[in-house]
Amino acid sequence: MRAVDIVQKKRDGGVLSPEELHFFIDGVTSGAVPDYQASALLMAVFFRGLNDAETADLTRAMIDSGARVDLSGIPGSKVDKHSTGGVGDKTSLIIAPVAAACGAIVPMMSGRGLGHTGGTLDKLESIPGFRTSLTIDEMKESLRAIGCALIGQTSQIAPADRKLYALRDVTATIECVPLIAASIMSKKIAEGIDALVLDVKCGAGAFMKSESAARRLAGALVQIGNSAGVRTQAIISDQDQPLGRAVGNAIEVIECLEVLKGRGPADLVAISAELSERMLLAAGVAKSRSDAAGRCRRAIESGAALEKFRQIIERQGGDPHVVDDYTHLPSAPFEHVIPAATSGYLAALDAGLVGRASVVLGGGRDKIDDTIDPGVGIMINTAVGDEVRAGEPVLTLRYREKRRLDQALALVNRAIRVDATAPAARRLILDEVL
Amino acid sequence: MRAVDIVQKKRDGGVLSPEELHFFIDGVTSGAVPDYQASALLMAVFFRGLNDAETADLTRAMIDSGARVDLSGIPGSKVDKHSTGGVGDKTSLIIAPVAAACGAIVPMMSGRGLGHTGGTLDKLESIPGFRTSLTIDEMKESLRAIGCALIGQTSQIAPADRKLYALRDVTATIECVPLIAASIMSKKIAEGIDALVLDVKCGAGAFMKSESAARRLAGALVQIGNSAGVRTQAIISDQDQPLGRAVGNAIEVIECLEVLKGRGPADLVAISAELSERMLLAAGVAKSRSDAAGRCRRAIESGAALEKFRQIIERQGGDPHVVDDYTHLPSAPFEHVIPAATSGYLAALDAGLVGRASVVLGGGRDKIDDTIDPGVGIMINTAVGDEVRAGEPVLTLRYREKRRLDQALALVNRAIRVDATAPAARRLILDEVL
Repeated sequence: MRAVDIVQKKRDGGVLSPEELHFFIDGVTSGAVPDYQASALLMAVFFRGLNDAETADLTRAMIDSGARVDLSGIPGSKVDKHSTGGVGDKTSLIIAPVAAACGAIVPMMSGRGLGHTGGTLDKLESIPGFRTSLTIDEMKESLRAIGCALIGQTSQIAPADRKLYALRDVTATIECVPLIAASIMSKKIAEGIDALVLDVKCGAGAFMKSESAARRLAGALVQIGNSAGVRTQAIISDQDQPLGRAVGNAIEVIECLEVLKGRGPADLVAISAELSERMLLAAGVAKSRSDAAGRCRRAIESGAALEKFRQIIERQGGDPHVVDDYTHLPSAPFEHVIPAATSGYLAALDAGLVGRASVVLGGGRDKIDDTIDPGVGIMINTAVGDEVRAGEPVLTLRYREKRRLDQALALVNRAIRVDATAPAARRLILDEVL
Repeated sequence: MRAVDIVQKKRDGGVLSPEELHFFIDGVTSGAVPDYQASALLMAVFFRGLNDAETADLTRAMIDSGARVDLSGIPGSKVDKHSTGGVGDKTSLIIAPVAAACGAIVPMMSGRGLGHTGGTLDKLESIPGFRTSLTIDEMKESLRAIGCALIGQTSQIAPADRKLYALRDVTATIECVPLIAASIMSKKIAEGIDALVLDVKCGAGAFMKSESAARRLAGALVQIGNSAGVRTQAIISDQDQPLGRAVGNAIEVIECLEVLKGRGPADLVAISAELSERMLLAAGVAKSRSDAAGRCRRAIESGAALEKFRQIIERQGGDPHVVDDYTHLPSAPFEHVIPAATSGYLAALDAGLVGRASVVLGGGRDKIDDTIDPGVGIMINTAVGDEVRAGEPVLTLRYREKRRLDQALALVNRAIRVDATAPAARRLILDEVL
C-alpha cells in the first residue's frame, strides 16, 4: 500500500477502505506518512468528502492511534456532553456538576479556545490553582471519588487527531464536516463513555453558520457515535447571539455559579437544563424526561450541584472560596460601558463580533500559544429583544489595556443593532438529532 | 501575507494575484513555505484550476526562482523543441542536429524518463562517454562553437519547479494542465530561447489520453510562451502506437542515426521533418515552409546533419565511432521474438503497454533513482497497418534477465491486436496550435 495511491483514489472520488484509512492514519501517527501527503489527502477529502462508512473508519483509525480509556471498573453509567463551541457557551461548568450530583459519572475532556469561541479549560483555569492536566489514572480516581473530572485532552488519547488538527489549521482544511466529525468523535469515544449528548451550535457565533450545515454535522456525529457503541444524540442550538450575559473567562465562571445557585439568565438556564436532562436519561439515571427534569431541578434547589462543583474545584487544586466570594477570581481593572445610541429594542447582537472582541481584549487566543487574560471580558446588560432607551448601557467591557479596548470597540459597535420594533422571539433549541 | 490564506483563497475558487503566487513560490524555493502547505495548494489547484493569467504568473514566479540564461551574446536565433513525452519518441536526437546544421542555435535542455515514456538524456547517455551535465557556461561555449548543446536541467534553472515536481509526484497532483504547463514552460523560457516548437502527444502512450486534453495543454503552453515573449507554437501528434520502430535507449540512438543517414521509418521521418521545418521558420532561418523543407532535406542528403550529430557527440565527451559502427553502442545479450498468433493486419499496438514493457526490461525507471539498462528494448518488426502472417515476427525484445522478460511479455502480449481487415490509416499529426 502506498500513501500516494490513497491520495489519488480519494482525489478521483473513490471510496477508501478501512485498511487504507488505517494505513494512512497509522502512518501519520508514526511519521511514516509525511505531512505533505497527509495535507494532500486532507485537501482531497475537503473536495470529495467521505461517506458514512469512511467517516466511521477514519474515526476508528484515529481512536486506535492512541489509548482507549477503560472505565468499566468504575460503577455507574458514564456520560459526557460536547459542544461544537460558541460565544458565551459555558454549559459544561453547569451540567457536569448537575449530572454528577444526580448520580451520573461524567469524565469530561474539554479543549481550549481558539479563534472567536472560548474554551472550557481556559474558563476553569481562571479559578486560581485549578489544574486541568490530570492523567488518565487521576481522572479515574476523581470519577470514583466524586463522579466527575473536568480535564484536558492527554497525549495518550487520539494522537493522530492532534497531528491532523494542527495540519488542518495551517492548510485551510478545517471546514470539512467528516474531518470535524472524526476529530470530535475520536476523542469522545476514546474517553470510554457509554452515552454522549452533543450541542451543535449554529449561527453568527458558531463554526456552522447555517442550520443545514449544523444538521449535517450533527447527523455525522450521531452516526459515528452510535456505530461505535456510544449512545449518541445531538441538539442544534442557536448561536446568532451570545449565550447568557457573560463572555470571557472569570466572568463566565461567575455566571455558572449563579446558575448553580438558582439564578442566572433564562437562555443559559434553559439550555443547561435541556442538556443535563438528556444526559441523565441517556445514562439511565432517570426513567423519563420529566423524572430527569425533576432530578436536575432538585440538584440545584438543594445546593447539591453547587456542592459538587466545589468538590471538583477542591479535588483539582482550585481555590474553593471562589464559590462563595467572587473577589477570589481575577478581574481586569477597568470598565467601559457602551450605551444604546437610540431608543428602541435590541434587535441583534452579533455573537461572532462579540466573540472576536473578547479575544481582542485578551480573553481568547488567535494562535495556539497566545496567553489568556482571565479577568477581561464583555458583560451583556441588554439582551436581544429587550427594550432599551438611548444612553442606557448595552454592553460593559472589562479591560486591562486601552489599545486592546479600542480594537474591541471597533468590533462590538458593529455587533449592536437597535430597531424601533421588537425582534421575533428567539428559538434557542432548533432541532434534535437522535 | 500568509500561505494558509492563499491556500484557502484557491480552495474557495478565488483568483490568485501575481504577488500571492510569487510569495508562495518564493517561499517554496527558500523553504519558508513548508511542503505541507505547498501540497495543500497543489491539490486545491488540481480541483479549482488556474486561469490564463494565474498560469502565466505562476510560470514567471518559477522562472524567477532561479537564473534566466542570457544568450544575447551569441549571434543567431535560438530555438528549441519540447515534447510532452511518448513511447519511441526520439525526435530530439534528429531535429537538434538538423536545425543546427541549417544555422539555427539549439540550446536543448531535456529530461530523463519516468514512468512509461523514455527520456532524451537517457538515450544520449547510452552513447559511451556522453556527458549531459554541462554547466550554463559550457552550454554557451558549445552553442558558439557548433550551434547546439544537448543537456540536462541544471539546478540553477527554475529550482522551484524541481521542488514542486518532486512534491506533485508523491501527492497525486501531476495530472493538472496549468501545473504541467507552468512546469514545462518555466524551464523552457529560462533557457533564453527566442522561439519554441512543442510536440504535444496524445493517445495510449502519452500523458494526455484524449485529443481534447492535449489541445487544452497545447493551448496553455502556447499562451504562456507567447505572453513571455517566446514565439511559441505546438503540434498535436498521435501516440496511440509507438513512434518509429525502436523503443529503448541504444536502439533508439541507432534509429536516429538511420534517419540522419536518409533512412529510417516513415512516421519518424515525417514528424522529425515537421518539427525541424517549424523550428527553422520560427527561428527566421527559413523564409517559407517550403524553403525550410528544402533546407532540412539538404542537411540530411548532404550528410551535414549527421556530421553535426558527430560534432555534438565529440564535444560532449561521447564516442563518435558510434555514428559509423553501431557495435560501439551497448546491447543486451538475448533476443525474444513475438510472432503473430493469426494472419491478418496489425490493427493496434498499444504504446502505453509497449512503453511499460520497455521499463520492465530495464530501459526506463519507475522511481527517480532507478538505473537504466541502455542495451535492452523492443524492436517493432510489423508496424500498425501492415499485413502479417501467423508466425511472422511482430516484436523482438532485447533483454538481459529472464525474470524481466517474463514480466514484459505479459504486457506486450496484451498490446498486440491482429484483425482480418486493415485498420484506418494513421493520422500522425492531428492539429496545430499557434
